[in-house]
Parts: sequence; C-alpha cells; structure tokens
Amino acid sequence: MSTPKDKLDRLPPTVVIENIQPSIEGGRYPVKRVAGESLMISADILKEGHDVTAAVLKWRPQGQDSWFETPMIPGENDRWSATCLFTENRPYDLTIEAWQDEFGTWRAEYLKKFGAGLKELRTELDEGALLAEHAAQRTGTPEDRATLEGFAARLRNGDAPEGAAVANDETFVGLMSAWPDRTLSTEYRPYLKVTVDRPRAQYAAWYEFFPRSAEGKPDSGSKFRDCLPRVDDARAMGFDVIYFPPVHPIGFTKRKGRNNSVTSEPGEPGVPYAIGSQYGGHKAVEPELGTLDDFDWLVGEIHKRGMEVALDFAINCSPDHPYVKEHPDWFYHRPDGTIKYAENPPKKYEDVYPLNFYNPDWRNLWNEMYDVIRFWCEHRVRIFRVDNPHTKPIHFWEWLIGEIQRDYPDAIFLSEAFTRPKMMKSLAKVGFTQSYTYFTWRNTKWELTEYLTELTQTDMRYYFRPNFFPNTPDILPTYLQTGGRPAFLIRAVLATTLSTVYGIYSGFELCENVPVPGKEEYLNSEKYQFKERDWNAPGNIKPYITKLNQVRRENRALQEFDNLRFHPFDNDQILFYSKATEGLDNIILVFVTVDPYNGQSGFASIPLDLFGLGENETYQLHDLLTGERFFWRGRRNFVMLNPHERPAHIFRLRRLVGQDGSEQIFG
Amino acid sequence: MSTPKDKLDRLPPTVVIENIQPSIEGGRYPVKRVAGESLMISADILKEGHDVTAAVLKWRPQGQDSWFETPMIPGENDRWSATCLFTENRPYDLTIEAWQDEFGTWRAEYLKKFGAGLKELRTELDEGALLAEHAAQRTGTPEDRATLEGFAARLRNGDAPEGAAVANDETFVGLMSAWPDRTLSTEYRPYLKVTVDRPRAQYAAWYEFFPRSAEGKPDSGSKFRDCLPRVDDARAMGFDVIYFPPVHPIGFTKRKGRNNSVTSEPGEPGVPYAIGSQYGGHKAVEPELGTLDDFDWLVGEIHKRGMEVALDFAINCSPDHPYVKEHPDWFYHRPDGTIKYAENPPKKYEDVYPLNFYNPDWRNLWNEMYDVIRFWCEHRVRIFRVDNPHTKPIHFWEWLIGEIQRDYPDAIFLSEAFTRPKMMKSLAKVGFTQSYTYFTWRNTKWELTEYLTELTQTDMRYYFRPNFFPNTPDILPTYLQTGGRPAFLIRAVLATTLSTVYGIYSGFELCENVPVPGKEEYLNSEKYQFKERDWNAPGNIKPYITKLNQVRRENRALQEFDNLRFHPFDNDQILFYSKATEGLDNIILVFVTVDPYNGQSGFASIPLDLFGLGENETYQLHDLLTGERFFWRGRRNFVMLNPHERPAHIFRLRRLVGQDGSEQIFG
Repeated sequence: MSTPKDKLDRLPPTVVIENIQPSIEGGRYPVKRVAGESLMISADILKEGHDVTAAVLKWRPQGQDSWFETPMIPGENDRWSATCLFTENRPYDLTIEAWQDEFGTWRAEYLKKFGAGLKELRTELDEGALLAEHAAQRTGTPEDRATLEGFAARLRNGDAPEGAAVANDETFVGLMSAWPDRTLSTEYRPYLKVTVDRPRAQYAAWYEFFPRSAEGKPDSGSKFRDCLPRVDDARAMGFDVIYFPPVHPIGFTKRKGRNNSVTSEPGEPGVPYAIGSQYGGHKAVEPELGTLDDFDWLVGEIHKRGMEVALDFAINCSPDHPYVKEHPDWFYHRPDGTIKYAENPPKKYEDVYPLNFYNPDWRNLWNEMYDVIRFWCEHRVRIFRVDNPHTKPIHFWEWLIGEIQRDYPDAIFLSEAFTRPKMMKSLAKVGFTQSYTYFTWRNTKWELTEYLTELTQTDMRYYFRPNFFPNTPDILPTYLQTGGRPAFLIRAVLATTLSTVYGIYSGFELCENVPVPGKEEYLNSEKYQFKERDWNAPGNIKPYITKLNQVRRENRALQEFDNLRFHPFDNDQILFYSKATEGLDNIILVFVTVDPYNGQSGFASIPLDLFGLGENETYQLHDLLTGERFFWRGRRNFVMLNPHERPAHIFRLRRLVGQDGSEQIFG
Repeated sequence: MSTPKDKLDRLPPTVVIENIQPSIEGGRYPVKRVAGESLMISADILKEGHDVTAAVLKWRPQGQDSWFETPMIPGENDRWSATCLFTENRPYDLTIEAWQDEFGTWRAEYLKKFGAGLKELRTELDEGALLAEHAAQRTGTPEDRATLEGFAARLRNGDAPEGAAVANDETFVGLMSAWPDRTLSTEYRPYLKVTVDRPRAQYAAWYEFFPRSAEGKPDSGSKFRDCLPRVDDARAMGFDVIYFPPVHPIGFTKRKGRNNSVTSEPGEPGVPYAIGSQYGGHKAVEPELGTLDDFDWLVGEIHKRGMEVALDFAINCSPDHPYVKEHPDWFYHRPDGTIKYAENPPKKYEDVYPLNFYNPDWRNLWNEMYDVIRFWCEHRVRIFRVDNPHTKPIHFWEWLIGEIQRDYPDAIFLSEAFTRPKMMKSLAKVGFTQSYTYFTWRNTKWELTEYLTELTQTDMRYYFRPNFFPNTPDILPTYLQTGGRPAFLIRAVLATTLSTVYGIYSGFELCENVPVPGKEEYLNSEKYQFKERDWNAPGNIKPYITKLNQVRRENRALQEFDNLRFHPFDNDQILFYSKATEGLDNIILVFVTVDPYNGQSGFASIPLDLFGLGENETYQLHDLLTGERFFWRGRRNFVMLNPHERPAHIFRLRRLVGQDGSEQIFG
C-alpha cells in the first residue's frame, strides 16, 4: 500500500495552466494553420499567493530540440495571451511555460517599501544582489554576465535610494527578465499540436474534370496525352489545382451503363469509382487513359504550368479488383462464403465490394491503403480528394494521414463527406486538411450567413477548412437547375469570395443544368458515359470566373479565411460582407444578390469604424469586376444589382491618401 | 525508424466518443456529487458508415472491478445521454463504452428488405441465425441461452415472413440487446472522476464560535468543558456543524493585543491564528482551553447531539512554533540566515512566519501537513475549514485532500479563499469540497441574481459548492453595519434559501454590527481579546434563524442546490426565486426584499408552466415562516414586504388535490 509521500516523487506543477485556447477537444487534435500564418494563444495561468508570475508561449517544429519563445501578457481575470508565427510546412508542438518571477516579486516589493519611505532596506538590497548574482551565472554572454555582476555590486554596496535606482534601471530589468530562474517552472503537458500546412491548403482554386472527357468527344474517351488543352483552359481561367476523378482501371463485372443503368453495352466506359480490373487496382491507371508514364508526363506538364494535380482516393473495389483474389479476407462475406456487394437496403450496388476495415487481417489492409497513397505521392501527386471517408473508420484516417504527412508534410487531404455535421467535423479534427461542405445547398441570405458565421467565427475555423464546390459530378443542386445562367454567376461569386478554397466541376462554366428529373443529379452524367461538349459553348461564364480568380489573386484579404464579416443590408435578397487584412491595407466589400430572377436593391450600412473611416469621410469603392469607381460617404449607401448583368459588386475600398492639384488620390 | 504499421500494434478506437459533459477541464478534475444524487452525462458518439451504434454509460466506485451500466440514448445531432446514480461516499470512475450494434444493424436491414417486398432472404436469415447463435454463447444463464438458440433455429429454418416475426419478437430483441458482441467496442479513456461526498457536504448549517468566548465572560476565557451551552443553543437554532477557529497553542512572541495592536499586555489571550508555543503546534490544543481529552470529550458531546465539529486548518506558525526550531529549513530566510516573517509591503506581520512549500525538504513539510489533518481525523474531526488556501500551492491541496479522502472519504474541506474568481474556482477543482464565496458582498438584486446564476447554472455547479457566510470573524460587511436588524434578517433569508450550505459567525444572531471605523472589521474583535456577550440579548434574531433552519429541514427543495431559478418581479428591491424538486412534489417560492430600510411591494410573474399550473388554476401559497395561507390564480400577483416585520415570504406552493364537501384541499 502506498503512503501519501510516495505520491511526491516529484514536485507537482507549481503553476496552474489551463483552458488553453484554441484547443481542439482539449488538445486531443491539432489546430490547423498554414506556413506564414500566426496564431493567438490564450490560457488561464494561476499561482498561489501574491508573487509575480511570468509565462512564455513556446512552439517548435516536431523533432526540433529548441523552442521559439515569446512572453505571454496577462489580461483581465487571469487570462494570459501571446501570438506565435509558424514558418514551416511541418507539424509543430506548442506549449506554455510559467514560473514564479522571483526578481519581479523582489522588484515590486522593494519599490513598494522604498516608496512607503522605509530607509533600512539592507536585507532587501542583499536579496536583490543575490538574485542578480544568480542571474549572472545563467547568462549566455560574458557581457551580460559582467553587466549583471556590476548591478549586483551596486545593490550589495548601495543604500536604499541606490537600490531603487537599480530596480528602475531598464538594462537591469531587461537582463533579469532575459535570464530568469526557471528551476521551479511548470510546462503544460501534453504539448498541443499544430498542423502547419502549405499555403495552397488554404488558398486555391480547383478545377475538376474527367480525363476521358478532355476533348468532349461523343463516342470515345480522351487520354492523358489529350488533356493539355483542358488544363491550359483551366489555367487561363485562373485555376491552380486540376482534380481528376479516379484514373484507375475500371471493373468489367456488373459494369454500369448510361445514367446508372445496371447493365452496360460493350464499349461503354464504366464508372471510374468501380475500381479494379485485370489491368490492376489502386496503383494502376486505366489503359483507356494511357500508361503510368503518360500520367507522369501529364503531372509534369501541369507542374510546369505552376499548377498541381489532385487525385481521387476512392476505397471501392469492383468485383474484378486484384484484392478480391489476393485478399478475399479483406471483404465482407455471406454465411455461404461469397463476398458481399455494397447495399443500402433495399438498394444494391453490385458493381462495388466494400472493404471490411476490421477484418482479422486489418493491419495489412490498412497498410496497403497507406501504400496506395504513398505510391501516388511518389508519382508527384500531393493532393487527395477522399471519396466518402465517413464510411471508413475515423481513426483509420487519423493514422493514415498522420503517417503520410510524416514523410510528405505537403500532402493535402480533402474529405468528401456530405453527411451529419459532427461526422464532418470529426473527420476534419482527425486530420483532413480540407472538407466538402453544405455550401452546395446553402442558397438564401439567412442560410449563408448562418453557415459561414459558424465556419469562420466558431472553433471550427481552427480545424475545418471548407472547400466550396457549387457543383460536383454527383450533385447538380436545384438552385443551379432552375436559376439559369445568373444562378451560376451568383454561386461563382459566393464560392470565390466566401471561402479561400473552392472548386468547380467542369461544365459549371458552361452552365450545364439538365438534371435527371426530380433529382439533384446530372442527366447523361459523364460518370457513366462519354460526353460531348463544346468547352467554349455560347453563354459560358468563363470570362466571369477568370475575373473572379484574378480578383482573388490580387487581393490578399480574399486569401484569408476567418476575416469574413457580415454587415447589415436592408434587402433579404442581397448579402453584404467584407474581408479585410489585419492592417486594413486591403479591404474588400462584397454585395451579391441571391435572387437569380429579379433585380434587387437596397441600402447598406457600412461599418465605418471597422475600416477606420470617419463619419464624414469620402471613400472610394473600386469595383474590381468592372473597373468602375464610386464615391461614398457615411454609413447608409444604395446598391442595385441585376442577376443577369451585375449579380455582384466586389469593391475594393480605397481611402483618400493624397491630393494632386485638384485631384484626389485614393489608395 | 518506425514504419506505418508499427503504429498499428492494436486497433485504434472504433467509435469516436468525445465532448463528454459535464467534465471539468476535459476530465482533469472530478465532478462533485453527494451520495444519493444522480448525474446526467451526455457525449458526442460517432461511428463511420450507416450501421446502428450502441452505447452504455458505466460507473463504479474506484477500486471496484465491475461497473454499473445503463444504456445511452441518442438525441439530436449525434448527442447521446444517460443518467447515473451514486450511492456511496467514495470516489467513482465513470466512462462510456460504445460499439457497432451488429444485431441492430441486421434487424434494421432485414426489416427494410422485407418491407420492400424482397422474398429471397435466405442469406439474411442465416446471418441472423449466426448472430443469435453467437449471442447464445455469451449469455449468463442456461435459460437465456436456450431461448436464443430457439430463435436461431427459427431463423435458420424459417422463410422471410418467419424471419420478420423473429426480428420483431420482443423477447428476441431484448435478449440480443442484453448480450451484445462488444469485441470491437471502444471505452472512453482516461476515466472521468466523480467525487461523491456525503450529503452533509451539500446540505448543512454551520455555527462558528470561539471556544474561549462560549460563556461571554469579559475578562477570562471559557474552556472546552464550558462549551456545551453554546452548542445546545446552536442546536436549538437548527445548526448541525459547530465550527471552531484554531484551538491550538497560541504564540507568545510578538503576540498581538486588542484590536490588532502590535503589542499585548500580559494576560491577553492572543490571536488563535498565530499558532504554536512551548505547548505545541498544530497537533496540540491551547492549554487555556483544556486538554486534548477535553477536546475529545467535547467532540463526543457534539456527536451525541447529531452534530459535528469543523476545525480550522491555518498553516501559520508563530515564532514559538516547534517547527521553527525543529525544521528551520521549512521557512523563508533572509540573506543573514534569520527567518522571515509575513509581509504585504509595507505591512509587516511579525507574529507569523510563513512556510516555504518549495523548500528543499518540501516532502517532509507536505507530509507533516498531511499528518496534522490525519491527527484530527483520528480525533473524530471530519470537517476542515482551510484558512487562506490560495497562498499555498494549488497542487499541494490536490495531493493533500486526495490522500486524506483516500482513507477518510467523509472528510470535508472548506476553502476560505476570498480572492480572484479563477483562483477560487481552481481550488474547488483540485478538491475543496466547499468554498467561501462573494455572497458576503453581494447585496443588490442584480448582484445576487447574476452571481447565483453563475453558481447554479454554469459548469461551476459541478465542482464549486458555495458555503454562504453573511459574516465571518474577519468580515463585517457594510450592509450589516448600516442596515440594522432588518439587514440581518434579510441576509439570513438569502443565505439559507439561495444556497444549501451556509454558516454564521456567532454574534450574527445578536445583530452585532459595530465596526472598526471605516473598515469591514469588527470593533473589539474576539480574535484579539476576551469578549463579553449576552447570548440572549434583546433584539436577537434567534427565533427567525430557528424558523429558517426548520423550513430548510422540512423542504427537500431547499436541500437541492442547482434547482434555483429566478423569476420576474417588477420591483428592483425584491428578489423572487423558486426551488422545486424534480417531481414538483416540493415547490418553494421565495420573495425577499433587499432594502433594509423601507417597505417594498410589486407584482410577481409566476412561471405557471414551470410548476405545471394552468392559467386559471387556483393555487395555495403557504407561508412557512408565518403559517399564513394565500390563494392565487394566474401569473400576475401582488407581494408587499416590510424589512422589519416581514422581510420575506417563503411560500410552499400547494395545488388543489381534492375536495372535502365544500372545502378545497391543497396538498
């Protein structure tokens, strides 16, 4: 039986450090940042008694020995804070260290006594001298040491006023603070984790297309070698990530036909999500698209253009997948021993066999999934859009992403989980870099305001990076089906300015909007067939998208995520929001109608104080889409939008910075 | 270098269980309950895919092998909950276990397929049979086993409709749910902790007096053997805890005199908080009070009366304390080697030497503090009021209280920390059973409403038990100094009905209110001198206090803490609040004025729905202080209070339960 003293093998923490914010599930999961971004950390820091406490925020890339440090500053109610900056695309540790500041305590008490007129302070002077002598031993340079020894001597030999002079000497106070005695300090454990991604994790524009549809031929598929015109077109529009649905061999058994028919005709290309055939599985490419060399060539060409490739990671196996023969135990089995296909009773998906992540040989299955991702990393792919991650174990992803990012910290994983809110959040917490969102179905002013406020103003902003897709191969939302071309313009404005990462599924720029009747699915979807397309069809919105991407590129406020703020506008069809950089050197105001049918207008209430504008100051609104310039003053200003011609203003707010003769200059 | 598979030595959690509420600092500190009390636990529980999930809440006294279990029920947005009951005065562990409910999944899918008209369900029937056979192996009784085997046979031999009949059989579903396959279940770790105290930790009335003042003699002190009349008087008033300031030997060196004079005359008794003399230290009693045997006798007499003793634990040493000679290294030293007295610059407290809890021999000091508490536990004391705990290391208390409660789970510690909010909370989190509060200075309706709402409606209610003292030997609040006898009546009503634990420092019942001018301190405080008193002086409020304690004893709603609710009243001088038991069998309404000078009146808005009353129902308000009965109907009702005669109504709300002839009966 242990005795009370047994628990005292080491001194318990001398300082209480708790309620550190931000922290995800009490530090269980990392906060996300991108390289070059800073983070403000705050915490409750408490120590007994009345002595002065000191604290520092510490952070370092994992595996590095030494910490970066910055002093924490106490605010109201024992809440301390400091800001740190992350520079490398690596996982970081972060913690707080606090201790009783003996020197600060001595200094405060000495000056109090001296101020109260006490003259006999010999003991206090000697105490100060001792502290200075001890600090001298801790210094890193002979100069600092000599300086501190000099102050120590003054304290040891001086009288009360001399002590006060030393206690108030800036050099002395600075050196004593720089070389504190941390013997009894408390370091917060376990360390908090920060995943620091590369900037493109936060700011990017994705363009999704099926390689086989690159040329838009009606009866046959394009190959990797045919994809460059499509890539160049996307580049011209301003996209920087080319996202391909699965490029792996497509199964033949139970291959689906046009419009999801359960049978297919010979020659039909099949669904890229039914992965695996005699030509290989997840580490092979569909022969109809070319060879692995062709793929590598295409990746190289895309990289040359300053863009990169995102691949789909869909853990689906067709009945022809090599795993079925090599690892039948990885699948689910019926009592008669046959392998089960996917079901959502009473629906059957006979072209796909789901994997059993808890099968007795689960370690090898999980490791094979790791090998698949690693294989494509070695083929210079660093972005993975993961299909339906919410149907695989959540902690499988934590392991997989963690292991991949250990060697490839620049790897980006996008969670395609359109499911319950907490599941989507959980996947983001365990490691997904980005997430699909409900944006696809948020159309009204109220819906958008509420959802974006949750994304950008709650704790979600620390771990959930929304990648806004107005459409996907699986989803043609009702709004786009019914709103005509204006609906596409409006959704483009919203996707590009509300989030920093967004993507479109090709065809969006052509305003393709013919659904399977009664469903939010594309009719004659290229998921199931070859698809004829004129990539420059009349009525396309490519110039508008090009302009939007340009505006994003030229305005840093639009590359920051959680600076979004909504402002009052007296018409429920018009959204008014702003994004501004911290120093207010880039202020963007967006007015966008959500009514794709009728003109809308109303009065905005401009939050002048937020932008540092005076009540009577004239400011310029420079419409970045049209080049027009407007001059406003005060809070209440009129805006009129037309979904066909002018669905939105994206204004850069410029203030008067000078005068050239009679001409006012706005900067 | 480790490879990805190395991380897979065991299966990661299969279910995400997080955001468990309540939990204090993510489970770092225990939640507090008393034996007989229940606790609702909720959590986010998430699993991949579309299978049915099952979860149980589990709890057990620490050290016990088997768990109590109750199923958790899913509510909105993946939030699950269940309620557990604690019966023993011991520390408990608590956790959640969740797993994929294979049977529930099979059942749901089977019934969906059957409902969709599928006839060929041979595979599904066999799967069900297998599940039933496996469950049969897990059963605890031969009967259950046989029953399940019977169902398994029906599934194995039956057709589709027979399968549906079995799937809908209540006995079958019940047994399958009772014997689930938890092989792949996830148990939340680390376990959450619950400190389950005895009921008196939550519901008690304390009476504090200085033993030396028991008889109220002007020139000499009373002894332990003289204390029974005071104890009996307190008992008659309804108190159940007798709290003594320190009873240890008082130092002679630098002994303080009347009204905190830095010098004392021979024969002056000294401050009980300057502990230690040639007669001993913290494990001895002051000879002027008697012997340890006398103390034991007094404790025994108090126990015989159904009451108990609370002792003061003040870690202060007079210069004469035995520790000073035996353990000089436990104290702070000046550079010249002398021991430092306490200071709050420029003030000096030369009669007290503070202990250095981080001195090199800290282990022995800490252990000695443990021994002191243990010593008094062995002398049948189980309640300790700890003086100024916030000037000692926070984690010292965590260790000390934890170690004491390991052997004496009935030990109660009251934190006397009148300091910053987060420090007070922190001490409660690390283990203090009860805490002094700001109640002493909260006088207005707004202040009281705000503070009590924080105490009873936020997370504080799970760890911070307020012990309301309207006065202490150190604090005579301005309100009591200036408000006359009505102020004492009002504060008594507030203390007894707003919290479940409260106490008065003797003299309160006599409305003693003479301060040191300009301070919140008692003039001629018995801390420093003998004090003459007539314990039945005219104008005393003993009958009122007696009544209040009786009302508390007879109404269970007043013994529950976080059932306090404030309701609208249209006069800012009158507080209106209620306390009700969960079943509404005891509903107490309190109307109390906070104006000690003038009569006040106004209209209440009765929350009828909260009490299950109809808009037109007549209900009876039985004034428990006076016996009067009023009949009200509807929401808006008039109340008039007078601080001298009737500072408060404490109503029991009774509803019509029957009719006896023409007489209505309210129960």
